[in-house]
Amino acid sequence: MGCSLNDSLICAEVLVKAEMRGISSHGLSRLPEYIALFDSKRVYGSSRPFVVRERVSTALIDGNKTYGMISSEMAMRMAIEKAKIAGTGWVSVRNSYHFGIAGYYSMLALKHNMIGIAMTNANPLVAPFRGSKGMLGTNPFSIAIPALKNPPIVIDMATAPISRGKLDIYAASGLAVEEGLVQDESGKGVTDSSVLKKGGAILPLGVDAEHAAHKGYCLSAMVDLLSAVLPGANFGQLVVPTLSYLRNRGAEDRGIGHFFGAISIDAFRDVNEFFEDVDLWIQLLKETPAIDDDLPVLIPGDPERVNETNCIETGIQLTDELYKLLLTIGARFNIPLKLLG
Amino acid sequence: MGCSLNDSLICAEVLVKAEMRGISSHGLSRLPEYIALFDSKRVYGSSRPFVVRERVSTALIDGNKTYGMISSEMAMRMAIEKAKIAGTGWVSVRNSYHFGIAGYYSMLALKHNMIGIAMTNANPLVAPFRGSKGMLGTNPFSIAIPALKNPPIVIDMATAPISRGKLDIYAASGLAVEEGLVQDESGKGVTDSSVLKKGGAILPLGVDAEHAAHKGYCLSAMVDLLSAVLPGANFGQLVVPTLSYLRNRGAEDRGIGHFFGAISIDAFRDVNEFFEDVDLWIQLLKETPAIDDDLPVLIPGDPERVNETNCIETGIQLTDELYKLLLTIGARFNIPLKLLG
Repeated sequence: MGCSLNDSLICAEVLVKAEMRGISSHGLSRLPEYIALFDSKRVYGSSRPFVVRERVSTALIDGNKTYGMISSEMAMRMAIEKAKIAGTGWVSVRNSYHFGIAGYYSMLALKHNMIGIAMTNANPLVAPFRGSKGMLGTNPFSIAIPALKNPPIVIDMATAPISRGKLDIYAASGLAVEEGLVQDESGKGVTDSSVLKKGGAILPLGVDAEHAAHKGYCLSAMVDLLSAVLPGANFGQLVVPTLSYLRNRGAEDRGIGHFFGAISIDAFRDVNEFFEDVDLWIQLLKETPAIDDDLPVLIPGDPERVNETNCIETGIQLTDELYKLLLTIGARFNIPLKLLG
Repeated sequence: MGCSLNDSLICAEVLVKAEMRGISSHGLSRLPEYIALFDSKRVYGSSRPFVVRERVSTALIDGNKTYGMISSEMAMRMAIEKAKIAGTGWVSVRNSYHFGIAGYYSMLALKHNMIGIAMTNANPLVAPFRGSKGMLGTNPFSIAIPALKNPPIVIDMATAPISRGKLDIYAASGLAVEEGLVQDESGKGVTDSSVLKKGGAILPLGVDAEHAAHKGYCLSAMVDLLSAVLPGANFGQLVVPTLSYLRNRGAEDRGIGHFFGAISIDAFRDVNEFFEDVDLWIQLLKETPAIDDDLPVLIPGDPERVNETNCIETGIQLTDELYKLLLTIGARFNIPLKLLG
């Protein structure tokens, strides 16, 4: 699709990483969406992102209508370089597209003894507290914190209580979802997993007024404001949708936006002292008495890392559907599919 | 209690601001807690915070056992000054104490055309997802975003679904709370508003596994890691409690910690273009069709600002209890209480 070899490798690495970390909703199954962006000339693989504005700890990058992974990897590397000099680095990106898993970028900071941060806005599917329409994205947020004796702490989550990908999986099996996750077009709570296609919306984290759904709304809002409003991308419901059932509001296409940060530990504290405390933090949280002995308290990132470790041994298990999809895509682009093992 | 006039004014301003913004749980009613810190020689009003480490966009401040407001105001002003030069400024504080409302500090950035961020850790009262013990604080987080035609967007929230202050208010009236907010010592969900005093804990935002309480846990964890582990303050359950019913774990007292940030809009984008987009963001969210016409969609910070505007007209309404408390405190420190109107 016009990408250089290096850019292709970045995109492939992000998608494969998602599969390995068990976040297959953001993995290879997204390829048709990326190809559709190419076919509709919204994305050009051969484009190069460029720096628009720069300060010692900040930069704004214009994605220049290339794939989100390409501008995002560039942005995160730039944030890390800035943090080496200024103590922190913060790079926002506009005119970009779906960047895969947020955790890929935040984790790039770890080997530099830095805390990494990544977030993005997305298709408007989440209702604000009290609202009946999807106005904000599931707006994922990731923060990766290095440890020494333990694996790093990696938070990587949609700010809504359920992702669109998970709803699609329920819908494909004809299953209903729990109450308190989605609402219909009028704002009435429902369990219909295909309700997004009928004008429904995802509820904010917190479910209802009594359980502080206004805080979930604030969280989604924060990611939209930092990721999209700050760099000048399409925000809120003005995001030009990549989902056929969402209405295009006719806004000028400035893409979606991302926000990346790198915080050098050394700028604040002796790195070894920090590692000691992070390791103790992990130990104390792990030792929290569990309500159910079979369900111990986890450290953020544990499930994804276990999945990744297993995949290194066993490879990635493809569903029949995904295998067929890859064959079709391979045929179109003359790439023979070779499976190992 | 030894504070300079200037430091006293900062503390007073933060507490009065909390009352005016309707967050009286963080206002004048906290004075006995602050006096107890003084009486037990954990805090010295005459101490001065000092800078430990510094880079062009960062600093670590040691609160030096003075009141949290004093080190926090210094830290936020320093973050703003750094952002003027580096594009962003990030200052963490250790050896500090309760700082009042997070929103006071984040809002200091607004008049500089900056986004302000403030967060702090706190007494361990919130259980991690799946855990039966309080290991993390209610860990408030605030972000303030300037607008032009509209008032600023101000998110200022505990990361748990209910604050300790609100539980205390329910308990004082003998009222139960909704299900899904607190659990007893064994981790069983209860509605007893005084359960914290009996070894219980607050649940993370999201209520349960089905509604993504692991995300609420991640949010509280993030604030603990950035506010307390990064600067080297007491974190998690090692916070030396200011609540008599919490067990002192015997950790060396490094105080609690805070994290402040200032992001210069101009470092990323033309300020006027940014303002136009924020105003449009506010307008679009306000126009979201409401589920109930009597409960319109609000912009974060709206309820607090309405309260503040009203207080400018009417003054702060003191409860009888608070009035008596102020008389008692005034008598001890030889400060006559003069009420206006």
